[in-house]
Amino acid sequence: MEGNQRKIMVLHGPNLNFLGWREPEIYGTLTLKEVNERIINEAAIYGMEVEIYQSNHEGELIDHLQHSRERFDGILFNPGGYTHYSYALRDAVASIQLPVIEVHLSNLHARESFRSTSVIAPVVMGQISGLGLHSYLVGLKALKLHLDEHIE
Amino acid sequence: MEGNQRKIMVLHGPNLNFLGWREPEIYGTLTLKEVNERIINEAAIYGMEVEIYQSNHEGELIDHLQHSRERFDGILFNPGGYTHYSYALRDAVASIQLPVIEVHLSNLHARESFRSTSVIAPVVMGQISGLGLHSYLVGLKALKLHLDEHIE
Amino acid sequence: MEGNQRKIMVLHGPNLNFLGWREPEIYGTLTLKEVNERIINEAAIYGMEVEIYQSNHEGELIDHLQHSRERFDGILFNPGGYTHYSYALRDAVASIQLPVIEVHLSNLHARESFRSTSVIAPVVMGQISGLGLHSYLVGLKALKLHLDEHIE
Amino acid sequence: MEGNQRKIMVLHGPNLNFLGWREPEIYGTLTLKEVNERIINEAAIYGMEVEIYQSNHEGELIDHLQHSRERFDGILFNPGGYTHYSYALRDAVASIQLPVIEVHLSNLHARESFRSTSVIAPVVMGQISGLGLHSYLVGLKALKLHLDEHIE
Amino acid sequence: MEGNQRKIMVLHGPNLNFLGWREPEIYGTLTLKEVNERIINEAAIYGMEVEIYQSNHEGELIDHLQHSRERFDGILFNPGGYTHYSYALRDAVASIQLPVIEVHLSNLHARESFRSTSVIAPVVMGQISGLGLHSYLVGLKALKLHLDEHIE
Amino acid sequence: MEGNQRKIMVLHGPNLNFLGWREPEIYGTLTLKEVNERIINEAAIYGMEVEIYQSNHEGELIDHLQHSRERFDGILFNPGGYTHYSYALRDAVASIQLPVIEVHLSNLHARESFRSTSVIAPVVMGQISGLGLHSYLVGLKALKLHLDEHIE
Amino acid sequence: MEGNQRKIMVLHGPNLNFLGWREPEIYGTLTLKEVNERIINEAAIYGMEVEIYQSNHEGELIDHLQHSRERFDGILFNPGGYTHYSYALRDAVASIQLPVIEVHLSNLHARESFRSTSVIAPVVMGQISGLGLHSYLVGLKALKLHLDEHIE
Amino acid sequence: MEGNQRKIMVLHGPNLNFLGWREPEIYGTLTLKEVNERIINEAAIYGMEVEIYQSNHEGELIDHLQHSRERFDGILFNPGGYTHYSYALRDAVASIQLPVIEVHLSNLHARESFRSTSVIAPVVMGQISGLGLHSYLVGLKALKLHLDEHIE
Amino acid sequence: MEGNQRKIMVLHGPNLNFLGWREPEIYGTLTLKEVNERIINEAAIYGMEVEIYQSNHEGELIDHLQHSRERFDGILFNPGGYTHYSYALRDAVASIQLPVIEVHLSNLHARESFRSTSVIAPVVMGQISGLGLHSYLVGLKALKLHLDEHIE
Amino acid sequence: MEGNQRKIMVLHGPNLNFLGWREPEIYGTLTLKEVNERIINEAAIYGMEVEIYQSNHEGELIDHLQHSRERFDGILFNPGGYTHYSYALRDAVASIQLPVIEVHLSNLHARESFRSTSVIAPVVMGQISGLGLHSYLVGLKALKLHLDEHIE
Amino acid sequence: MEGNQRKIMVLHGPNLNFLGWREPEIYGTLTLKEVNERIINEAAIYGMEVEIYQSNHEGELIDHLQHSRERFDGILFNPGGYTHYSYALRDAVASIQLPVIEVHLSNLHARESFRSTSVIAPVVMGQISGLGLHSYLVGLKALKLHLDEHIE
Amino acid sequence: MEGNQRKIMVLHGPNLNFLGWREPEIYGTLTLKEVNERIINEAAIYGMEVEIYQSNHEGELIDHLQHSRERFDGILFNPGGYTHYSYALRDAVASIQLPVIEVHLSNLHARESFRSTSVIAPVVMGQISGLGLHSYLVGLKALKLHLDEHIE
Repeated sequence: MEGNQRKIMVLHGPNLNFLGWREPEIYGTLTLKEVNERIINEAAIYGMEVEIYQSNHEGELIDHLQHSRERFDGILFNPGGYTHYSYALRDAVASIQLPVIEVHLSNLHARESFRSTSVIAPVVMGQISGLGLHSYLVGLKALKLHLDEHIE
Repeated sequence: MEGNQRKIMVLHGPNLNFLGWREPEIYGTLTLKEVNERIINEAAIYGMEVEIYQSNHEGELIDHLQHSRERFDGILFNPGGYTHYSYALRDAVASIQLPVIEVHLSNLHARESFRSTSVIAPVVMGQISGLGLHSYLVGLKALKLHLDEHIE
Repeated sequence: MEGNQRKIMVLHGPNLNFLGWREPEIYGTLTLKEVNERIINEAAIYGMEVEIYQSNHEGELIDHLQHSRERFDGILFNPGGYTHYSYALRDAVASIQLPVIEVHLSNLHARESFRSTSVIAPVVMGQISGLGLHSYLVGLKALKLHLDEHIE
Repeated sequence: MEGNQRKIMVLHGPNLNFLGWREPEIYGTLTLKEVNERIINEAAIYGMEVEIYQSNHEGELIDHLQHSRERFDGILFNPGGYTHYSYALRDAVASIQLPVIEVHLSNLHARESFRSTSVIAPVVMGQISGLGLHSYLVGLKALKLHLDEHIE
Repeated sequence: MEGNQRKIMVLHGPNLNFLGWREPEIYGTLTLKEVNERIINEAAIYGMEVEIYQSNHEGELIDHLQHSRERFDGILFNPGGYTHYSYALRDAVASIQLPVIEVHLSNLHARESFRSTSVIAPVVMGQISGLGLHSYLVGLKALKLHLDEHIE
Repeated sequence: MEGNQRKIMVLHGPNLNFLGWREPEIYGTLTLKEVNERIINEAAIYGMEVEIYQSNHEGELIDHLQHSRERFDGILFNPGGYTHYSYALRDAVASIQLPVIEVHLSNLHARESFRSTSVIAPVVMGQISGLGLHSYLVGLKALKLHLDEHIE
Repeated sequence: MEGNQRKIMVLHGPNLNFLGWREPEIYGTLTLKEVNERIINEAAIYGMEVEIYQSNHEGELIDHLQHSRERFDGILFNPGGYTHYSYALRDAVASIQLPVIEVHLSNLHARESFRSTSVIAPVVMGQISGLGLHSYLVGLKALKLHLDEHIE
Repeated sequence: MEGNQRKIMVLHGPNLNFLGWREPEIYGTLTLKEVNERIINEAAIYGMEVEIYQSNHEGELIDHLQHSRERFDGILFNPGGYTHYSYALRDAVASIQLPVIEVHLSNLHARESFRSTSVIAPVVMGQISGLGLHSYLVGLKALKLHLDEHIE
Repeated sequence: MEGNQRKIMVLHGPNLNFLGWREPEIYGTLTLKEVNERIINEAAIYGMEVEIYQSNHEGELIDHLQHSRERFDGILFNPGGYTHYSYALRDAVASIQLPVIEVHLSNLHARESFRSTSVIAPVVMGQISGLGLHSYLVGLKALKLHLDEHIE
Repeated sequence: MEGNQRKIMVLHGPNLNFLGWREPEIYGTLTLKEVNERIINEAAIYGMEVEIYQSNHEGELIDHLQHSRERFDGILFNPGGYTHYSYALRDAVASIQLPVIEVHLSNLHARESFRSTSVIAPVVMGQISGLGLHSYLVGLKALKLHLDEHIE
Repeated sequence: MEGNQRKIMVLHGPNLNFLGWREPEIYGTLTLKEVNERIINEAAIYGMEVEIYQSNHEGELIDHLQHSRERFDGILFNPGGYTHYSYALRDAVASIQLPVIEVHLSNLHARESFRSTSVIAPVVMGQISGLGLHSYLVGLKALKLHLDEHIE
Repeated sequence: MEGNQRKIMVLHGPNLNFLGWREPEIYGTLTLKEVNERIINEAAIYGMEVEIYQSNHEGELIDHLQHSRERFDGILFNPGGYTHYSYALRDAVASIQLPVIEVHLSNLHARESFRSTSVIAPVVMGQISGLGLHSYLVGLKALKLHLDEHIE
């Protein structure tokens, strides 16, 4: 992958298409469309190109992770409810050789106890959680720093 | 949603399309087609319209739950094997604002120990289990009572 | 037991005599007297006779379960707080050869964690929970369906 | 309840009628009669009236808690062996709207491990333990302070 | 207690009055009346007098254990379903200073996992289980041996 | 199914399409295409016909298991990451009446602790693991032996 | 085995050869030789012949259990420290078709927590414990009753 | 220590200096200064002298416990957040030979689950909790009763 | 706090003063001094002022958190080894009403199992981990975004 | 070891000498002698020489594993009941540098829960289970494949 | 035992005869013969006589512990893999009245999690581990100090 | 560090300054001063210089471990009550590159269950426990052997 413009995959897991309607006291009132616009704007500031994909299907998320392997420089991944049990997603993350940052809108540790376990966390590069929409924006910053300091 | 005929989504999870053939000493000898006919007949008695859907795919079940949000008055949901681990389905149930009743054919507490845990149960309105085909019929009755006494 | 009018025992466990006063945000504002009237009316519609008994005493509940064995066709049993530890009640349920349906007003899975364990559940025919007063009414329907389709 | 003399129910659970004879190295050599006399004297000093009841029967203790609801200003409750499993007693305590203080003669945390769990503790106002007879006397003091500072 | 005829209390816990009818593949087909006759006959051979009591009520069993303290030389106690959780019965057994033998008809270790825990076992003298009716007869022999070799 | 040529379904679960690229120190450097060729050659030696299918989608794997029921004589199934939580796949395996052998490339017991639990194992005929590509070849041999000695 | 004199194998596990010297406050001051004499005398009263064997070796105990299968009518087995982990002894007990009674000198439930688990208990006919030497004598009585009432 | 005026150490653990500001819905609105004044006044009524110390430092609390050994007659100790893990404080409490009463403002059992475990409780004389400021006042009463009845 | 320059406290917990020397394969080769310089530079870009403090003493960290309450707009906190057990630090974080972001250099979920539990996480605003030095830089960005969008 | 005829040690653990008699519904009706003949025949087909040894003694199995180190090319090991607890056998397997395949007749995952744990599995090359006699035959095939592809 | 030359039994458990060959990165490259020579030399310096025995057989180790009781002044015991489950060895150690020091070559706490549990540790005088060969030498020193200061 | 006189840091954790007074039945009657004298004398015999430090403060112990890194050749560390939870101390031990030996006076495995867990043990070189004062003396010997055989 050449040193020109970075390409980032932003992968939203299940039920994130319901953002804004879904338990707004936890997830906020911004819709996924509005969140994606902020992500695109922030990426532009960093000179990064983003592609965004949402799916409720575990298999499709695995497919997308695999397909990202040769087309992107890094991944922001919010695995949604799959966070807590999908060893299949974990294996997919482990099998691609890209920096993956696990992102969560809410502070999982302040909610039901099952949410504080992520089976995916042991194989990602880092995690960012609890910052709402900002979790994604800050994640872009993290990938920017990582790619700049490790490649150029 | 106006006060005329109630619309109920009946959602069958994985392997329920094998009813009648699958471990009949546990699940009985009625096929899913026969079960659905009984459901439709019972609903007609209550003046309710039902739509019935079966899928083995977790993602499709999430999609259907989400799409039901604006088209139905209530849901009977048998999550099948996903009952015991699908936090993604749980989040979908929690994100739609409809009365959902979790339905099981068999008495899960009288079988393997993993079956007595439902990760979906904490976010539904109620559960009915162990009554075979009757679990669905009685579930219709419960939705009928609930909708009549809370809306009219 | 001949094919004439069904007789159903409705057994209320500890603290149910405090319904209406007790944590109304969980259990509703109907008193036990009002709940019982609804049960009796619903049973009449199904052509079933009900006898209703409440006790705070575990031993008396065991006695009543045993005495029901030859006098009733089915039992609706809300074991209240005994649900979570009374192996003595479990043995009593297992020892009478009647269809017993375990009934709960609230969705136990949405409350304190100890409430999601029922030591009685493995030996009943089915469970209905989370529907408030309707749990009982729907339980009558379930017994009606069961008795009609298995005996007549 | 008017501002005149406070009425306190002191409720002794199972096996407390054996005080003095029962494992005196743990529970001391005072009989229940002697303990009750000290309680009555101490209450008199505080201008409080006490009624004292002991039972080995879980159901009777529930009955007494329920009956106390309209007749007393507060309760000192030593649930004895029921402390560790009686969710039925817990529900009874939670259902009456009185200040209840859980009292234990011995330091439960210094004995068998099962004793350090109280299923009743989460729904009482406070606990006092390990002080022998003084647990009751100090409990009276606590109710005196509570009632004076919250009502008058 | 003088050296003349031994007096033994045989205490049957909950649901044992249903012996013969209750799950006969586990508990056998002898009724409690027939079991009691065998116990009385066997005791006569050993020159021991027995008193037999059955109750479904935890509190009554505690009362009987307490009352036995000055009237009997030893106790055979089958706590039935209370075996697995009644710390109140445990405290009662620990508070009387008599040899108590815990008796069970079936081999608890070969059944549901909760049955292999006895909260009473740590405070009895010994346990005998799995021998059906013979558990009681052999228990009488054990008390005979114990009383003869410790007192005479 | 007649006694002529055996038909075997070989089902590869999630991420197995990445064989060769994915953590080669664990899974080896052979690609899935090369593995499949060895499987087909070995089957030919045993006079068995194989059909091979890979999917990252849990629902598609369930569909394929169900569709195999009337078209194949046996199944080699590597459930990949789904091994550790998919009760839906377990139910599918249990519902078809075919010999299923669970196959794993690596020795799951020598890796992360979650890998040593298979929720599918209790309902298969046998398991073979830790032999790399040979796990499949040896699995064919096992099906050959089983079908020959049980049917012909 | 004909109806003439019963033959009983008494099998002592590890460290029982140290009886009398080993922690006498738990195991008493009788030596194994003295215990064996009492066993032989008691057996004579019942008209039973006993053979007694002690070993510290798990393998030898398995060998002896296997060899007993055709030569004895029943077994009294004190597995000593092997009680708590020897699944190999458990399998041996399960594989011979003889009545085996598990015997312990001390009340295991009143000692270290690991002692209350017996991996052998689920496959024996019954257990007798806590009665010291009498555990063996009472075990002979139990075998006598069992053999008389099941064979003659 | 002579029979003249009792000297009591009141030891406040971490974050108690934030009383009044810190989560007032749990801990009340009184500042530590106001609480200390009430303690001093109450002690004066009992003719006891108090010294009060607060620290956020585990080591300083240990130092103070040790230094109290020869200078005080008893200790009221609120270990704050250290309650749940400080085995070092536990050892300090165990090593001084003074009556120590563990005091908590809130009912720990009605909060997060980790709060119901106190590693210090097994080595104190008694515990008082859930009574807010009154926990301290009542603790003084308990020390008064204890010292009067054990020494004078 | 007025809308002029933000003030951020950066709090380093135990052993972070050994950065660069300490297990460099995990924590990198930058010294704490170098890390702090990067933090100060990055903050300057955001127009934020930072104060940085390191301590190995739990009590001092509590003191600093408390003193930050009126002097800073937000906190970046790396609790080091205290992350896994310091309920006292947790209470301190919960008692100040500032946005606190928990920061870790390494991916705790990819190391020893105890490291994946943070007792502090449930009371912070968000967590950032696994990004090495970048965890701090990205944390500054997160506070910048949070303070800008919530106050201005 | 030269490239001529492979030598395989087949090691049968405790109670396998009872094959045919021992719980035939689980282990089949073939005796160990018949099983061994099939193993020898199958090995001959592969041009491998086998030596077979059975012992009920853990120490002898360790001795045999150690002695195999220089005399054999591979080992088929059925550890029987020792599978679930023998860390001594595990250490022996780990200490010899030979390919060891763990073999079980039955599907351990479909039986009692303790059977699904193998303490030996983490140090073997692979496992084969659930195929009855075929587990051994298929194990020979696995060793054949392994030795051919790794050495020649 | 008179004050002349001390006699020490050094007991090596299973697989220690493989020292030098067995996982040398953990256990070092010295053979057992070389280790024993160092032990003998060190003992000579302390004026102690040693006898050394190794066995892979649990029963033989029990026999040797028992036989040491009257012939030795102290024991150094490395139980090898038996450390983690042999309650029979534990009972043997507890039954002899000699100072026993448990010795391990490696730091068990830095290896697989099962290794950090020793069922024998609660009944020995002390443990020494992690020092390789020096664990034995230092153990001799410990016995020397103990015997000198307790006997002479 | 040159080959001349070894320098050893002896670090005593919390409450060890109370030796002699503190639970003498467990810790003996020697004061810390007397223990330190024996340590200094023993070190002199080995030609080693010791520095001894005691603190009740976790942070001070961390500081001392860090400061030892360049000034000492080895450390004897008794972490006292911090042994069981101080991951901060663990990290400090892991971060200095010195041989550290964990020392305990008593046999932790023979006391309360929490004492058998050391969170520090996985990162030390070795442990010595249960030998009272001798644990330190023997620890000096171990460091002597280690330093001589690894450096000179």
